[in-house]
Amino acid sequence: MKKPLVSLERVTLPPPSPSDKRADWERFKDALGTEDLTISTDLLRKLPGLLRKQGFQLNTMISHFPPREVISLQPENAYVIALDIGSTNITGSLLDLKTGNRSERITLRNPQTEDGTDILTRIHLASSGMGDSLSEKLIRGINLLISDLSAMAGIDNLNIHAMAVSANTVMSHFLLNLPVENLPVEPYVPVAHRFPSLHASDLGLTINPHGLIYIFPNAGSYVGGDIISGIIASGVHRGERPSVLIDVGTNAEIVIGTKDWLLAGAGAAGPALEDGIFRAGRQAGKGSIRRIEYIPSERIFRYETIDGDNPTGICGSGVVDLVYELYHNGLIDRRGRFTESAGTFDLQGEPALEIVRDAGIHVTEREIENFLRSKAGMFTALSVLVHSVGLGFQDIERFYISGALGTGIPLKKAIALGMLPDLPVERFLLLGNTALSGAEMLLQDASLIEEVEEVLGKITYMEMNTSAEFMQDFPSARYIPHADPEKLRD
Amino acid sequence: MKKPLVSLERVTLPPPSPSDKRADWERFKDALGTEDLTISTDLLRKLPGLLRKQGFQLNTMISHFPPREVISLQPENAYVIALDIGSTNITGSLLDLKTGNRSERITLRNPQTEDGTDILTRIHLASSGMGDSLSEKLIRGINLLISDLSAMAGIDNLNIHAMAVSANTVMSHFLLNLPVENLPVEPYVPVAHRFPSLHASDLGLTINPHGLIYIFPNAGSYVGGDIISGIIASGVHRGERPSVLIDVGTNAEIVIGTKDWLLAGAGAAGPALEDGIFRAGRQAGKGSIRRIEYIPSERIFRYETIDGDNPTGICGSGVVDLVYELYHNGLIDRRGRFTESAGTFDLQGEPALEIVRDAGIHVTEREIENFLRSKAGMFTALSVLVHSVGLGFQDIERFYISGALGTGIPLKKAIALGMLPDLPVERFLLLGNTALSGAEMLLQDASLIEEVEEVLGKITYMEMNTSAEFMQDFPSARYIPHADPEKLRD
Repeated sequence: MKKPLVSLERVTLPPPSPSDKRADWERFKDALGTEDLTISTDLLRKLPGLLRKQGFQLNTMISHFPPREVISLQPENAYVIALDIGSTNITGSLLDLKTGNRSERITLRNPQTEDGTDILTRIHLASSGMGDSLSEKLIRGINLLISDLSAMAGIDNLNIHAMAVSANTVMSHFLLNLPVENLPVEPYVPVAHRFPSLHASDLGLTINPHGLIYIFPNAGSYVGGDIISGIIASGVHRGERPSVLIDVGTNAEIVIGTKDWLLAGAGAAGPALEDGIFRAGRQAGKGSIRRIEYIPSERIFRYETIDGDNPTGICGSGVVDLVYELYHNGLIDRRGRFTESAGTFDLQGEPALEIVRDAGIHVTEREIENFLRSKAGMFTALSVLVHSVGLGFQDIERFYISGALGTGIPLKKAIALGMLPDLPVERFLLLGNTALSGAEMLLQDASLIEEVEEVLGKITYMEMNTSAEFMQDFPSARYIPHADPEKLRD
Repeated sequence: MKKPLVSLERVTLPPPSPSDKRADWERFKDALGTEDLTISTDLLRKLPGLLRKQGFQLNTMISHFPPREVISLQPENAYVIALDIGSTNITGSLLDLKTGNRSERITLRNPQTEDGTDILTRIHLASSGMGDSLSEKLIRGINLLISDLSAMAGIDNLNIHAMAVSANTVMSHFLLNLPVENLPVEPYVPVAHRFPSLHASDLGLTINPHGLIYIFPNAGSYVGGDIISGIIASGVHRGERPSVLIDVGTNAEIVIGTKDWLLAGAGAAGPALEDGIFRAGRQAGKGSIRRIEYIPSERIFRYETIDGDNPTGICGSGVVDLVYELYHNGLIDRRGRFTESAGTFDLQGEPALEIVRDAGIHVTEREIENFLRSKAGMFTALSVLVHSVGLGFQDIERFYISGALGTGIPLKKAIALGMLPDLPVERFLLLGNTALSGAEMLLQDASLIEEVEEVLGKITYMEMNTSAEFMQDFPSARYIPHADPEKLRD
């Protein structure tokens, strides 16, 4: 049976007697059948009273992340939180280890975005003495999410006994308030790959103060704990034959590998597919357009929003739909330029096309160009990485798509636009937020900590942005689907 | 070479480069040649800046008590403190691990004595809600001693990086503010034998906040860490043939054993030989009488005080001298009663003898009786313990004397009074404060931690006060030297 990261155990101790004078703490450990266990003085102070009050039968919560530790005595329940800290958003879910139930995932905006949407601005601010403030903002955001998750489940924050945290390397550094200034500077050295074992109180997180905070380790500035967690969730590291994980967040991050080797590549693949590219770009949420279709006879767009609300913007899958429809109906050419039949209007000197007149949603030529740069960056990174290990796309058994494109992306259209290799659609699997899934899995199965260490020991990193091959291939990947479509099957 | 409990190490790291992107923390651990090391987030925050400022060469202080941990980065020195916390006194010394120098030992009164000189009163107060206050008083006393030791050496408190603490079980519980109420109640169960690994800041001790606090584990309510430390210092646990450790503090505590087995016995052996028995009783210190001689021709006492100061009282060795002189010169009989030739005066209805007229130092019959009860308790406990394992005094290779009698006791006179077995004086060795010596040794040799665990695994405890043999033998041991002197050689 799988052992969760923290487990609720019922302990029955023989009461002390003249022939058995073991101390309470040693008696407790013996009953649990372990020597290798520690406890805070705070909880040790409560042990004798509780043992006697409960007739030497006690429930206890034990952390299985070394050093193994008692994190609660006589807890009422066994809630834990999985967390994915991105540069833009923080997403979390609440798990009940007793029932195995998982809450809905909740996403809040990372409050650090108040100080700068892009990460380099924040690193710069932190290096100029604002590190404490940025770290506090992040903690505040996480505490808000903890409150939301607790409120949703109708429980007390203090009944949450552990958190598993996936984050990119910059965010995990901010979480611990570690200096970030060396992260973006050659040779891109983090303060730590593995973080010390932490209690919630060490970071000011408002769960049980003794609660365990497990942070996925990173393999470098550009291979964060979120990627490591994603690998665990996708299983790329377990395959006999090569598979690929594509995680599209603020960057596109790609991992290729088998059970024997792993290669990661990441780089600024242009702005992300959510926010950033289109003025009307949105995260998937109430009112965002997720499906869109062009009706040539009426020269209008028909759309579908999440929850059927009035449209407020377009989310990732909607953007893919839109560009596909524009191209397929001849409104843009293969370089993304509006054709004469598009019927554009002039927006501050730039051609723009109306999408939803009532909601003021439109798209400009520059925005389409940005999208094509993004898809070219992503595809080229994928292509360079796959070819760098002497493989072709045909050799890849499975492509796992996660992140912004991981939920509901119209796969056939993405392939038709040249975002993904031209392979049978069955080879692609949409996995949603793998960074969060990995954290959820690890909370339920502590043995995955060892798999994480194996991944960390195996993974190597290839720098993309400076690769000559990347520079050479990138321009032709900006065409729809590609200047040389053969490259999509290569 | 011996490795100290915390060691100062010089680390040289290869600087990061494009071909070596290890994180600072992993790079640091690799340079130290260890995986098994942890660090607080506080120090981890400082690591990157310090490494770069120092050109990737750093001094560091590492704790070798599991979990192994970094306790200081770029410290100027390597001071540590050994501490013996008794119910009445706190004694400490400062060691410089760089030079191997040890400071003078300093003794302060345990501030808890304000609330009660005897330990049961304090346990009672703690059980009635005053535990926090008693614990704070103890911490305050230790912090005073830390300040005194630092001032004497002319160093900053914060330059002290570890403490090894010997204490009886009650005092170690007070140190951690653990509940003491079960300690004096059958079956005498401590909260813990082994205490969790602690930092100075956890206890409010004013050395380096990351400093390691090692507390000798106990083997029960009556076999404290001070006894375990004393065993380590005396080497009873290393002998091929049986030896005995007699530690006279507030109680007389006795350990007998070899490298294969250890048996401890303790019990209230009557009041201690310092304070308590004689109104004029004193701890060894300035002005206390340590040698005394009766001049029959002049019918006066000639004495010698510590440092030659005016006499203020009589310390342990002086008391032994005094009773011996009284008996030897026929001023008391073998039951401790004044003879007619003593020339007593009446003190509130009780016969008393003047010792130092000018200083108002005298001794009463009841006080001598108390002394004889104490010596009887100590001798009887020793006798019962030795015979309980089927041995006689002749079989004991060595008697180690520590505690109040451990310094400067006139051995031949103690034997003549029947405090100790009637054996050649060469069999006895005065070791001073073995509880403190053990702590000093462990600070300089971390491998002793394993010996401590071996001792803990081996030692058994025999209850004295309720033993029928003790009850039977005790009365005749109150005579000088014994009602049946054969028993002194048996």
